[in-house]
Amino acid sequence: MFQAKSYATQSATTPLKPFVIERRDPKLNDVVIEIDFCGVCHSDIHTARSEWGPTAYPCVPGHEIVGRVVRVGKKVTKFKVGDLAGVGCLVDSCGKCENCKNHEEQFCSVPVFTYNSVELDGVTPTLGAYSSHITVKDKYVLKIKKGLDLKRVAPLLCAGITTYSPLKKYKVKKGSKVGVVGLGGLGHMAVKIAKAMGAEVTVFSTSPNKEKDAKKLGAKNFIMTKNADNFLPYVGKLDLIIDTVSAQHDFTPYMSTLKLDCTHVLLGAAPEPNQISAMALIFGRKKLTGSLIGGIKETQEMLDFCAKKKVLSDIELISASQINEAYERTIKGDVKYRFVVDSKTL
Amino acid sequence: MFQAKSYATQSATTPLKPFVIERRDPKLNDVVIEIDFCGVCHSDIHTARSEWGPTAYPCVPGHEIVGRVVRVGKKVTKFKVGDLAGVGCLVDSCGKCENCKNHEEQFCSVPVFTYNSVELDGVTPTLGAYSSHITVKDKYVLKIKKGLDLKRVAPLLCAGITTYSPLKKYKVKKGSKVGVVGLGGLGHMAVKIAKAMGAEVTVFSTSPNKEKDAKKLGAKNFIMTKNADNFLPYVGKLDLIIDTVSAQHDFTPYMSTLKLDCTHVLLGAAPEPNQISAMALIFGRKKLTGSLIGGIKETQEMLDFCAKKKVLSDIELISASQINEAYERTIKGDVKYRFVVDSKTL
Repeated sequence: MFQAKSYATQSATTPLKPFVIERRDPKLNDVVIEIDFCGVCHSDIHTARSEWGPTAYPCVPGHEIVGRVVRVGKKVTKFKVGDLAGVGCLVDSCGKCENCKNHEEQFCSVPVFTYNSVELDGVTPTLGAYSSHITVKDKYVLKIKKGLDLKRVAPLLCAGITTYSPLKKYKVKKGSKVGVVGLGGLGHMAVKIAKAMGAEVTVFSTSPNKEKDAKKLGAKNFIMTKNADNFLPYVGKLDLIIDTVSAQHDFTPYMSTLKLDCTHVLLGAAPEPNQISAMALIFGRKKLTGSLIGGIKETQEMLDFCAKKKVLSDIELISASQINEAYERTIKGDVKYRFVVDSKTL
Repeated sequence: MFQAKSYATQSATTPLKPFVIERRDPKLNDVVIEIDFCGVCHSDIHTARSEWGPTAYPCVPGHEIVGRVVRVGKKVTKFKVGDLAGVGCLVDSCGKCENCKNHEEQFCSVPVFTYNSVELDGVTPTLGAYSSHITVKDKYVLKIKKGLDLKRVAPLLCAGITTYSPLKKYKVKKGSKVGVVGLGGLGHMAVKIAKAMGAEVTVFSTSPNKEKDAKKLGAKNFIMTKNADNFLPYVGKLDLIIDTVSAQHDFTPYMSTLKLDCTHVLLGAAPEPNQISAMALIFGRKKLTGSLIGGIKETQEMLDFCAKKKVLSDIELISASQINEAYERTIKGDVKYRFVVDSKTL
């Protein structure tokens, strides 16, 4: 074991503070990464505050990780010391079930998430990447191409794959008409990736002052959702909606903008139940579904796609001491578009 | 024009009473049907009572129609006088749009429903089949095979196609595991048709006393839904859920019983919004959707399938004077499983 610096919270109601944790020395297939940057995801906040059920404390959040390999286990061939490396929301899974075999480890019945989860040994809690180092099995570590602005790569590991996966699954291509609900960390990535895939993007937002930014990011259309009449020109026009809002909302008005048999995908999970009109689904056989990050293979594919298309996250770099303030600003939507912790400041 | 006997309601709050209506003489492509039997669908009640928005009165409900052709227009070749004929929920559509061309007339932007709708002339209200006769364009009239118990065929024209269409769309076949929520008019047809397609059927119901009947109809498993623990043995087991309940309910517990990427289809439309947890959709990428009857071609396919497989509705035959009482009993779920009006009693 070795010690690593981190920022942790000890309860649902206390701020994150500096905290020393232990990381394991590399086992045969492990990679030790010295972390350069870690994005601040809304899931970090939900978990730090036990909003998705009781969290195990101390909790070190953080699952948008970019860094460099500093040690490798004896059987590791995928990485060598000095290589760039990324880690997202998953650090292990059984590897044997149908979902693991289909490269959808996120649906393994015993997935090991990067924090607030338990290793496959059944007892060791996982601690996330508001931290100087992390030790991860090589299979769950992603390759990062050289020459990119690494702090802008970090959010791809969660916000990027979470939006890429449904866009890919629903075969977005040149000419597809894609709606994106909410223009935050996930939303701005959805706009950029959909645009890079060739789609015409329509952003739905409660904030009229986001129109200019939506268009700068690549959206063609903007719908200010507080006025129901604004939906009317878009009735039956969209092939897919990517909904990034993680607060309770009514999906019904969005359904009207979808074509026959088309789909509204939820990426944000409000803790409270949401409303949906059965009629809105029945007329036009609209579908409401969700999507959960992506598998490791697909995450690598996304990183390679983003590197090729020069798609990076728009970020605000912060020092570790600013994390608590960044949480408050994230909740208010006051960030363009992702806070990223500079790990040197831990 | 000619006169036809019917049962109509004059407002959302008054009972149905005998009423004389006018039907058009056959135009070139029309068929006049003398109605033998008409099923009582929950939609009839919602519409008679303006529960789905304001209804145009007088309202003659009824869209599960079986009868005999008594007159034909000069260009009609599909039917001759004396032929058996069926009519469901649709009596016309534009015939030119993409959905009409794809044999999905129910999604035409100007569909003409059998009652509480307006003919393509934009002014003539449609009146349904609690009536002695109906005049319908031949293209929207279905062929009924001889030798079947016609009063048990009538409900196929709505309850049959409404359940057949999603079972077909989601490719139910031998070995498929299908859940059916609610064991009423739609539910009992869903069980029979899914079983005839080779599926293993699980019925979900609030009434423990429906278990025996569910199994008699062909279900293998029964889940009494008022106890959440009853869902546990079925977590991740089903390929498809057909939800026939037209009262407000929370879809969340049902989602847990679906396999990855599988679908819960709503057929009943509660006027009030329903609840769904985003988490229940995100973990397992479960889909919530709806389905609306079926097109004319698919309705014929369903009738032929049911004739071949000997799938008929279980009914209680009533006289016209019992319609109001039948409405009350339908709302209470006190019918096995469909009331059918004997048109001779009008």
